[in-house]
Amino acid sequence: MRHVVIMAGGSGTRFWPASRAAHPKQFLKIGGDRSLLEQTVDRVVGTVGPAQVWVVTGAVHAEHAQEACPSLPKGNVLVEPTGRNTAACIGWATHVILAKDPAAQIAVLPADHYLADVPSFLHHLDAAFAAAEHEIVLFGIVPTRPETGYGYIQRGEKRGEKKGQAVHAVRRFVEKPDQATALGYLSSGDYLWNSGMFVFPAQVMRDEVAAHLPELHQGLLGLLAAPDQIGAIYPKLPSISIDYGVMERSQRCLVMPAAFAWSDVGSWDAAMEVYPADSQGNVLLGDAMALEVQRSYVDARSGRKIAVVGLEDVIVVDSPDAVLVMRRGRSQDVKQIVDLLKQSGKKELL
Amino acid sequence: MRHVVIMAGGSGTRFWPASRAAHPKQFLKIGGDRSLLEQTVDRVVGTVGPAQVWVVTGAVHAEHAQEACPSLPKGNVLVEPTGRNTAACIGWATHVILAKDPAAQIAVLPADHYLADVPSFLHHLDAAFAAAEHEIVLFGIVPTRPETGYGYIQRGEKRGEKKGQAVHAVRRFVEKPDQATALGYLSSGDYLWNSGMFVFPAQVMRDEVAAHLPELHQGLLGLLAAPDQIGAIYPKLPSISIDYGVMERSQRCLVMPAAFAWSDVGSWDAAMEVYPADSQGNVLLGDAMALEVQRSYVDARSGRKIAVVGLEDVIVVDSPDAVLVMRRGRSQDVKQIVDLLKQSGKKELL
Repeated sequence: MRHVVIMAGGSGTRFWPASRAAHPKQFLKIGGDRSLLEQTVDRVVGTVGPAQVWVVTGAVHAEHAQEACPSLPKGNVLVEPTGRNTAACIGWATHVILAKDPAAQIAVLPADHYLADVPSFLHHLDAAFAAAEHEIVLFGIVPTRPETGYGYIQRGEKRGEKKGQAVHAVRRFVEKPDQATALGYLSSGDYLWNSGMFVFPAQVMRDEVAAHLPELHQGLLGLLAAPDQIGAIYPKLPSISIDYGVMERSQRCLVMPAAFAWSDVGSWDAAMEVYPADSQGNVLLGDAMALEVQRSYVDARSGRKIAVVGLEDVIVVDSPDAVLVMRRGRSQDVKQIVDLLKQSGKKELL
Repeated sequence: MRHVVIMAGGSGTRFWPASRAAHPKQFLKIGGDRSLLEQTVDRVVGTVGPAQVWVVTGAVHAEHAQEACPSLPKGNVLVEPTGRNTAACIGWATHVILAKDPAAQIAVLPADHYLADVPSFLHHLDAAFAAAEHEIVLFGIVPTRPETGYGYIQRGEKRGEKKGQAVHAVRRFVEKPDQATALGYLSSGDYLWNSGMFVFPAQVMRDEVAAHLPELHQGLLGLLAAPDQIGAIYPKLPSISIDYGVMERSQRCLVMPAAFAWSDVGSWDAAMEVYPADSQGNVLLGDAMALEVQRSYVDARSGRKIAVVGLEDVIVVDSPDAVLVMRRGRSQDVKQIVDLLKQSGKKELL
């Protein structure tokens, strides 16, 4: 059967003041009235069925995640005692699912991405499940701009086609490029954004983890044999990303170019982009008022009034105990605010 | 004896969201930890004594004003059932004080002005009391810029000097000038800002009101004879400003040029000016954080955190239920926000 594993373990600080340690990005309502996690579950639950949708999250967020996914069986929320990076997370979920369904295919989806065109995404997901008979099929998003914030996948020769979607060999994975390199990638047509979404037969992932991360594999076997020991075993699993640990070493990866609108919503600037702007280029959410304001994002969904006057290119975000007022393009500095709050011991604001 | 009458009847909207209908500017903490009304009382109570300090305010603000002036005798807070402009307010207070102290001298001070140099102000006040033997002595502030937001007094020949401070005849009162005219006033040296602060013998003011506003005078005599009828009498008093009704008609006005720092704090832009700025030109109040911010005013005294990133020349003001984010120089648009809130029926924000 087809399964979906949603990775909801993130704990980012880039959406302060809306996101906090106990309320990270996947729980924020971005691009709609539902949180990104809820949107991710909503997107797939109708096609694979609730019993085949799994959420992996950290102990801190387990209750929150369970509440956000009332349609899923309770046992489908897998709780990591502590985060051990994506290879452990995906390896563990793979073993849990294999124990119930030896012929399982699994799609791994981050809980904190935004997809504007759900039908197009579901079509690609269907095609990727069809293509992922013996390989790991990665979604490579066709780039629309010379983005320097994403990793890229260079595609190789075409290896086949399913449901009208080509799959290609993977020539190489490349890190976030500089601006000139990103421009070259965009014009070459061979480079795709590494979306962090991929589909594989569970047995293939198990075998690839065993081959490339034998220590993790052994640890996972031990965990499967003694699941009540998870608190002792899980924190000792090797911490490595699935990209470094498996994808870049495996000979069994394919990439499916995908042209659907996708954002990893990495910042307030990116969050603004997922909303349609009004005639002034503004995105006004909640009780926001703008007088002679252009190209700005005003997020008053906390319930308080925000009035903005005579400004361009600003981001204003309210929360119950803090307000952010920032020039657009400065999203990266949000991390600095959080660092300063940490240094000043303002734990209640983190 | 010397008395001070503090006019605290204002109900401005220019300090939204900090000021509200029930909490106008005189109750705001501007330039210090005490409200403008408290600062005004504090400034004079030591020199004329609490029994000689009077506050006139509206029924809506009576309780608030009484709380703000715990050092004053309760009867010294005069409550207007409804505002009837400054001539009625000053005329009434004059009669009330005359009834207790026929030889009274009175200084009238607005409750919502800011004075940075209290010793200098008190020196001038002392000189004005000394000079106001038979005339109304107005404080004319020596202008420091071509301000178009104030009315001006053109001074005439010197008429005398008290405690080192000259007093001059008043040649004429002029309305708020345009920029070119204001520049001319500044360079001429003859024009002074009409501060709205003045000192007079109570009997002189009574006589001048009787001479120039006989209907008001009769009304006030009726009120003095039947103070328990104030609710019926006061709302029928003629509504006219003391400037139009008395000052511009009287032959008994003098002006004392005064060089102390003074602001009528007419807007958020003006409020920013009364604070010392840091090395970046910022005024940060309360729990405010600024990263690469210049020439900005951030008012987080509501208790919430405000973080500002990468902006110049902005004004950010937080309140428990609303936030204002505005370009400096756009203070006049605050009124428009309040109008829009009125139109949309958001009474709780007014």
